[in-house]
Amino acid sequence: MAEKIVVALGGNALQSGKMEPTAEAQLQVVKETCERVADISGMGYEVGVVHGNGPQVGRILLASETAKDVTPAMPFDVCGAMSQGYIGYHLQQALRDALRNRGRNVPVATVVTQLVVDKDDPGFKNPTKPIGPFYTEEEAMKLKEEKGYSIKEDAGRGWRRVVASPIPKKIVEIEAVKTLWPTTIVITCGGGGIPVIEKEDGSLEGTAAVIDKDFAAELLAEQVDADILMILTEVEQVAIHFNKPDQKNLAKMTLEEAEKYCADGEFAPGSMLPKVQAAMKFVKAYPEKKAIITSLAKAVDALKGETGTVIVNK
Amino acid sequence: MAEKIVVALGGNALQSGKMEPTAEAQLQVVKETCERVADISGMGYEVGVVHGNGPQVGRILLASETAKDVTPAMPFDVCGAMSQGYIGYHLQQALRDALRNRGRNVPVATVVTQLVVDKDDPGFKNPTKPIGPFYTEEEAMKLKEEKGYSIKEDAGRGWRRVVASPIPKKIVEIEAVKTLWPTTIVITCGGGGIPVIEKEDGSLEGTAAVIDKDFAAELLAEQVDADILMILTEVEQVAIHFNKPDQKNLAKMTLEEAEKYCADGEFAPGSMLPKVQAAMKFVKAYPEKKAIITSLAKAVDALKGETGTVIVNK
Repeated sequence: MAEKIVVALGGNALQSGKMEPTAEAQLQVVKETCERVADISGMGYEVGVVHGNGPQVGRILLASETAKDVTPAMPFDVCGAMSQGYIGYHLQQALRDALRNRGRNVPVATVVTQLVVDKDDPGFKNPTKPIGPFYTEEEAMKLKEEKGYSIKEDAGRGWRRVVASPIPKKIVEIEAVKTLWPTTIVITCGGGGIPVIEKEDGSLEGTAAVIDKDFAAELLAEQVDADILMILTEVEQVAIHFNKPDQKNLAKMTLEEAEKYCADGEFAPGSMLPKVQAAMKFVKAYPEKKAIITSLAKAVDALKGETGTVIVNK
Repeated sequence: MAEKIVVALGGNALQSGKMEPTAEAQLQVVKETCERVADISGMGYEVGVVHGNGPQVGRILLASETAKDVTPAMPFDVCGAMSQGYIGYHLQQALRDALRNRGRNVPVATVVTQLVVDKDDPGFKNPTKPIGPFYTEEEAMKLKEEKGYSIKEDAGRGWRRVVASPIPKKIVEIEAVKTLWPTTIVITCGGGGIPVIEKEDGSLEGTAAVIDKDFAAELLAEQVDADILMILTEVEQVAIHFNKPDQKNLAKMTLEEAEKYCADGEFAPGSMLPKVQAAMKFVKAYPEKKAIITSLAKAVDALKGETGTVIVNK
């Protein structure tokens, strides 16, 4: 039986800071990324891919709000759905080519994916994730009143809408993902998934929120019974005392060690912390399995046990 | 064995001319549409759904072009991919609810879908499909020079970009669609699919074109070996002498009759003609099968043989 792996791609897998944020530039970065994903598939793993969407959904929202006098602005859940189409298209096109170049005719498909979040998630009480354009105070107050947006002043740069970042509870399209899994590389839970609330009658409703893609990948890894959750980011290994003279890179962390490092504030919130937390959540749920945090470039080496940080139960 | 049906949804299944063209208004229309699709599923058919995207992709492009000084404009293939995410999300959310209300827990999933078109398709020689905003002559000539757009003057209203409307040759994600088909209602080939060219080395590249969704649905019906291709539009039956005193609605057309009516110019290009042509293509390829053209509201009645226009070989 092939081992199953869920690969979570970070922002640098889709965009390069050195290039203009155009779709054409994204496609070039995505092609390079898909070489690495094809390498993993070539090692014999069954692969599922989750990707972030921060910069992309931000630009979709920005374009939509900028053009609002010409065509109605899109709600944030729809912007998320659009970003799944956009990024999924690029990934599935580039990954198909990368696989074909290796003589592997594995089908690739993006499934548009909704993730249920709890309407009572504490994140909704105190939204902190800034999205979309900057506003003047006057504009901001008007949006607050007219649309009920949560608005916050952003470090002297202006006012911005903020949304919650709730923990995902359920992948709505999980049955379709499972059906595809054994034969197909599935791109799913893009941008952490389109966040929806489950109402009392069981129906779904989109909501303005940002689900962390690492937590979405973790949930997916649980649900498809993955052997490995692999979170790819900019650094080859997780480090403590990061960026200090005594920085120490970690080849391995047990749950107990990881808990201690988190408590010690070793990992930056919104950056390495959620990745470590997602990894911990996975090995807590499946103590016999492992999570790996490494860079895109070192993914294959990490799977061979040569680098990366592996997070295990004990 | 359950019969298989491919349902092609027309523009009125997604938007109402009476409402503002907002995402919220679209969702209301989509909910009603999905009641009818759920009815078809409830009759025991295995269902696949194809939808148009004309107004939606037009608005995505318009927002993108309007905001181009704030964030880079998106290429047209990417706009198409975004519209698949947008519309697919709404359809899969509403269809899940409609099915659940009938006690049917059939999974629903949107697959982002690329369709290969022939780079030598005659459509590329003489593009006629207008997309995006109106330009002044000066802007139009600049775009023609800088971006190589085909530009045409549009009936005195200004200048617009025109793209080809090629015939689709291949559904790139067909294996994934087939894998899902027996258990899942698949939403695929949205907006006719994201048009891509197959290059000499076999790799794919997005192109600016609009594939007619009825031809995409026809190709899908062939590939999944569907029993019925159902094209839903605003009218209950195809008519000859349409809108004239002697209008005659048709309960049935043979291929031979349909060919004669087409030659007589009975069906409007860009409206009923491509629907009839797609229906004819299907029954030509599978003489033992049938195509049905009817309205969304009458879909179930048409499947019972009570209305609609059925197109058969003989």
